[in-house]
Formats: sequence, structure tokens, C-alpha cells
Amino acid sequence: MTLSTPGPTLGVVGGGQLGRMLAEAAAPLGIEVVVTDPTPDPPAGPVARDALTGDFDDEATIRGLAERSDYLTFEIELADPDALERVSEETGTPVHPKPDTLRLIQDKLVQKRELAEAGVPVPEFRRVDSEADLRGACEELGYPAMVKARRGGYDGRGNVPVESPDDVAEAFAEIVDTAQGATPEDPEGVAMVEEMVDFDREVAIMGCLGDGKQDAFPVTETIHREEILREMVAPARVGEAVRERAREVALDVLDVVEGRGVYGIELFQHGDEVLLNEIAPRPHNSGHWTIEGCHTSQFEQHARAVTGRPLGTTEQRAPTALANLLGDVAERQEATMSGEQAIFEADRAHLHWYGKREVYRLRKMGHVTLVGEPDADRDELVEAVGALRDGTTFQN
Amino acid sequence: MTLSTPGPTLGVVGGGQLGRMLAEAAAPLGIEVVVTDPTPDPPAGPVARDALTGDFDDEATIRGLAERSDYLTFEIELADPDALERVSEETGTPVHPKPDTLRLIQDKLVQKRELAEAGVPVPEFRRVDSEADLRGACEELGYPAMVKARRGGYDGRGNVPVESPDDVAEAFAEIVDTAQGATPEDPEGVAMVEEMVDFDREVAIMGCLGDGKQDAFPVTETIHREEILREMVAPARVGEAVRERAREVALDVLDVVEGRGVYGIELFQHGDEVLLNEIAPRPHNSGHWTIEGCHTSQFEQHARAVTGRPLGTTEQRAPTALANLLGDVAERQEATMSGEQAIFEADRAHLHWYGKREVYRLRKMGHVTLVGEPDADRDELVEAVGALRDGTTFQN
Repeated sequence: MTLSTPGPTLGVVGGGQLGRMLAEAAAPLGIEVVVTDPTPDPPAGPVARDALTGDFDDEATIRGLAERSDYLTFEIELADPDALERVSEETGTPVHPKPDTLRLIQDKLVQKRELAEAGVPVPEFRRVDSEADLRGACEELGYPAMVKARRGGYDGRGNVPVESPDDVAEAFAEIVDTAQGATPEDPEGVAMVEEMVDFDREVAIMGCLGDGKQDAFPVTETIHREEILREMVAPARVGEAVRERAREVALDVLDVVEGRGVYGIELFQHGDEVLLNEIAPRPHNSGHWTIEGCHTSQFEQHARAVTGRPLGTTEQRAPTALANLLGDVAERQEATMSGEQAIFEADRAHLHWYGKREVYRLRKMGHVTLVGEPDADRDELVEAVGALRDGTTFQN
Repeated sequence: MTLSTPGPTLGVVGGGQLGRMLAEAAAPLGIEVVVTDPTPDPPAGPVARDALTGDFDDEATIRGLAERSDYLTFEIELADPDALERVSEETGTPVHPKPDTLRLIQDKLVQKRELAEAGVPVPEFRRVDSEADLRGACEELGYPAMVKARRGGYDGRGNVPVESPDDVAEAFAEIVDTAQGATPEDPEGVAMVEEMVDFDREVAIMGCLGDGKQDAFPVTETIHREEILREMVAPARVGEAVRERAREVALDVLDVVEGRGVYGIELFQHGDEVLLNEIAPRPHNSGHWTIEGCHTSQFEQHARAVTGRPLGTTEQRAPTALANLLGDVAERQEATMSGEQAIFEADRAHLHWYGKREVYRLRKMGHVTLVGEPDADRDELVEAVGALRDGTTFQN
């Protein structure tokens, strides 16, 4: 290859914070980023070459993007695989990851089935098409269980715990209510249920699929509350056996998926075992710590992979913790965050503001990363970054 | 302060690579960057909110910039201090560093005088307004000496060595020819001459002036050929005494200059002594290694300082070497660089492409940074990064 100006253009479906951080990472490599988003001037807008406005499944918008781009990718699972596939074929613009893989991942039931068949360890799960199915499955799997919308859920939305037989009817109705395209009269195909995994920790690993090369970043420990990722620390506070097992699983996942790019792989850890929770065919919140924590960030890695450049090293630089800056307001409103001064004043703390105009409860508005000394105590690091986050608020 | 969207806008006079890297660093802090440059779609264009087109001294352009900005700064000394001062007063938009300091630095003679008066060690120098002045000064200072245009020189342009009395006439004529606003008939005020310093090394230190706080990044060793910066390594291969002395000099320089920001301070080192060569009131090539080599980059530091945010730590993360990617072609032409594959393949190597459409001999087109292990041999690090650079070419 060669480098010139303008360099290759990477067209990204989605212009949220992932698109923004992708654009920040692509620029030094001479890669220009154009995004599409339903929201005019989305978070990626200020640092992208251009932001087109259109729905994630609007084929004309995606065609417009492809016509300006040398490579296509997406930063949100709501991207339409059919539209991407057609546009890619029509315009000859390669798309990575492959639309088939996006399709596979969009349906959590199909995702689990394919991964299980490939030997990836997954929790026990069942397809459930009715309240009766759910009741039967819960009796097999035991209570509590987790009923999930097969499509469209994220950040905990579309997941409902079923604690006892008394919860079954309400939980199923709630999933049908939140699932895309479902009606109470015809709920077939909308839901699945999984055993509730009794995990020690949740961990995540970013898999990297290059041109004939597989790799993975170090395992991250992810700390959720209300099913929202709050803090993370890398390396995870797990032993060598778990780290190796997680890496094996990541490489197995990369055998199943198609198309170059970075894949977020969320796992449950119990003892020395890990079980796959979910995968995302894109950079993922659990990999944000790599911006300062690794030599290559997950965003640079994704830009490299999708544009056919060699993968960078996944070597970690230092123990790193991260806390998400989440909306702490009851009502949707213009976003003004105070308390950021302490983040600016803390040595080795790094602010990442996502550029969203409005905040609502638990919306991801930014994050703060804290890089530790080589021998840093990871408990203290998580506590310290949490304290920086706790000093901020969107309340007036 | 608070954070919101859109965040503060930083207006930057100049949209070259420094503006580009400033925009890359400002985005995560929620700071939007707008630049002005005489060239449409300059290097900073793809990652800035907007790029206005206009000359560096065009007051209407600077006013347009100020009207969109909360803070003004500049990334090139060709910015017009008078225009900046007037526009800042008219619009109430603060400008940092202060136009008075820009004015001081623009005239190398005035710069040296003020710094010498403040106790900063400088080479012996004389004002020279005629060939006869130059001849007299060289006899006092000894041959060889360096005659310099007082204004407008950079990257070695505007500096001419005077090896012997035979060179005096030609050297003076050359300086008058290259100096801004000078004519052979009226050369008064255009030139100065300095003793040629017999240095062991050239080193540089980035001074940081925050709101009531002074700091400096670790000392960098800079390696020039044909008066162009080729490679650098940090920390410099000098002893503790030199590092301390350089830091003292940097803090003394920060006492002289006015206005928040990062200042590039170039020094000659001889034994345990350092002498000031030149200062630049902005991020500087010799500080590019901080992007990966420090927790806070010089660009983030400048963005923090100018917008009144606290300075970040100047702590170094690892030994770091850097090589500039310079034009190696004889004629000005469209830029296409080959050989970058090895940079992508090298672990811990980081490419920075500046997004310039045309290349000419010795034009700065990008750089490559190589981060070493904590105990890295710095000779080897410089050699390795030089080899990566040597593998690239703009020749077809």
C-alpha cells in the first residue's frame, strides 16, 4: 500500500461515541472517517470529515456513504445487514465485519446456537415462543433465569430476570413489549431464556481479526450495576488460567465470525471456567481502556483491520481502570456536567467526553481512564477512578 | 467549570500538522477546534470542526475565527500579533500565548535580548545592520558564526553560517534576500549574528505555562541534519545535571513569556551547561514524542492551558524515539509515500500522517514514534526508528 492525501475514507454506519473515538484514532493513520447517523451533528461530527444524516437502515444513506468510502464498517448493531450487503455488492465497497456476521449477532438465539456448535462454552439456553415455553424452560434450567429479547436489546434493555414461577407471565409480556416487531398476539421468534450464571466476575476480551491473523487484547474485568457497565480494570483480577481460557474462547469466537475488525466478547467467569455472554461486532465499551492502556487502542485496531492494514500489538502498557460517566438525572435534559475539575487535576487521569447534547438516566456521556504504576493495586485503581466519576454530576 | 456540548471552541490561527494534532487531542476533552489557514482544507481540516480560509495576518479572517471561538491561539509564528491583539480586545476572546510574547519571539534579536536580560544563558550575539556590522561582529565573536534573519526563518531557512571573512558579503546578502521586508538598499533591522556554539548535543524542552503554574516535559535530544530535525529521543542521553539545568532554564523562560500555553525551547548542550537557541510559543516538533511517550501530550497540554484547564502531569511513560517523515523528492509534487507497511507491522511504532497533499524536499509530511521498553537502549531505539523512516520514500 501507499499513503497519500486524501487517504482512504472509512465509512461508518453510526456516529456515536464509538464513531467519534474511531475517527480520533484513524486520523493519525491518514484514514478519513465519514459517518451516518439519524441525529444531525452526532458525537462523531466534530472530528469526522463529514456526518451524513439518515436512519441506520436507510439504504439510500448507506449508498451515499459507500460512494464516498473505500471501506465500510458500522459502530452499532442496528446497522442493517441486508442494506450493507446490497450496497457493498453494488458499489464494490468492502464491508467489515461481514453482514452475515452482523445478522448472526443481531439474533441472540442464533448467535448462541452457532457459537455453541463451534465449541464455545455458553450458558444453557432455550428458544421460547410463548409464556408456556418460558415456564417449561425455566423449570428445566431452574430459577432464577434470564429471559432475553432476541433482537435489539442493549445496555441491559431487553433482559428480564425471572426469579420464580410467579414472574413468568409478567417477564414474558415485558420482553414481547420491548422486542422489535413483536406483538402479544404473535410473539413467535422474539425471545430466548438462559440459565442465570452464578459468576464470580464478568470479564471481557476484545478479539481482533486481521487479514489472516487473530489476536486479542488482555482480559478486562467489567463491573456492572443495573446491567450497565460502570467500571472496568485491566488486567482483570483473575489468575493466569482464566486469562488463558478467555483468550482461547476469544480465538474460537474469531473462528466463527467473518470479516476483519475488533469484536467485543463479554464473558462470565466462575472459578477457572468462562462462559460466553454476548459478542459485539465492533469496538466495545469494555475496550475503551486500551486507548491509554495499550500501545494500540481498540479503535486504531479496528481502523487498521477494516482497511486491510496489519494489526498492531495488543500488548498492555500499564494497569488501567476506567469508569463510565453516566447520566444521573431523572428527566431527559440538556447535558451540563460539573465536577470534571478533579479529573483534570488527577495525574494520569484521562477524560473522554462524547459530545452528546442531551443527558438522560444512565446514558453514557463520557468516561474517565486512570493509568496506574506498573505495580498498581487494582482494587485501589478501581476505587480511585470510581471516586473521580463520583465527583461528577449532571444535576444542577 | 462545567462540560457541555458543544464545549468551548478553540480558535487556532494555522491549520497545519500542529493544528491537526491539537484537534486530535482536544476532542476527548470536549473542546472543539476551528482553524484558519491560507490553504483550503489544510491538514487540520478533516479533524477540526471547521477550517476557515484566510492569510495568517488577515484581520477579517481572525475576527471571523474569534467570533466563533471562546479562546484563541496560534500554531505558527506567522500569526499577526497586532491583528490578534485588536481582535481579542474587540471581541473579548482571550488569546494565549499573549500577542506581546508572539511579537517578542518573532524578532530573534529582541527574543535573545530579553531572555539574556532575564538571566537565561544565550550564545553571544550582536545586532548587524550592514555587511560592515557583520564583519566587525564576526571578528569579535570569532569564525565560524551564524548570521540569522531576525524574522520569518524556520526549519533552518533564514540561518546562514559564516565560515570565514570571505563569506561575510555573500552571507549578509543572502539573509537580506530571505528576510521579510528587507531590501539590499535598506537592510537595517533585518539581521543578527551569533557565535557558533560548539555543542555536544542539541536538546529541547517543552515548557508549560498554566494558570499560575509552570512545568516542563522531560528533556528531549534532537538530532538535526541540514538544520532540519530528523530524529529525537527522550529522555535525552545526558546526565542528571544537564536535565536539571535544562529544566531550570525552561522555568526561567516561562518567567519571561506571557500567556498560557506550551512553549518549545531549543537548547545547545555542552558539558553540564546549556545555552538557549530558540523558543517557539506553541507546541513544537521536538515535543511530538509526548503523544505516546507521556501521560499528557504537548497538544493536550496546550489545549488545557489555553482554555484555562489545569495542566496535566508531564511524567514520562517510557523511553521514546521519533523520526520525521520528510520529503525526499527534488520537485514539488503530489505526495504518495510507500514503505509504510513496516511501520504498521512494528510493535509499538506509531504512525502520524499529517494529511498534506503535496510533498517537496525536506517538507515534514508525518512522523513515526517508537516506544521502548522501560530499560530500552536509547541508541538502539533511535536506530530502530530511523530504520523505519528510512524504509519509506516519496519517490515513485
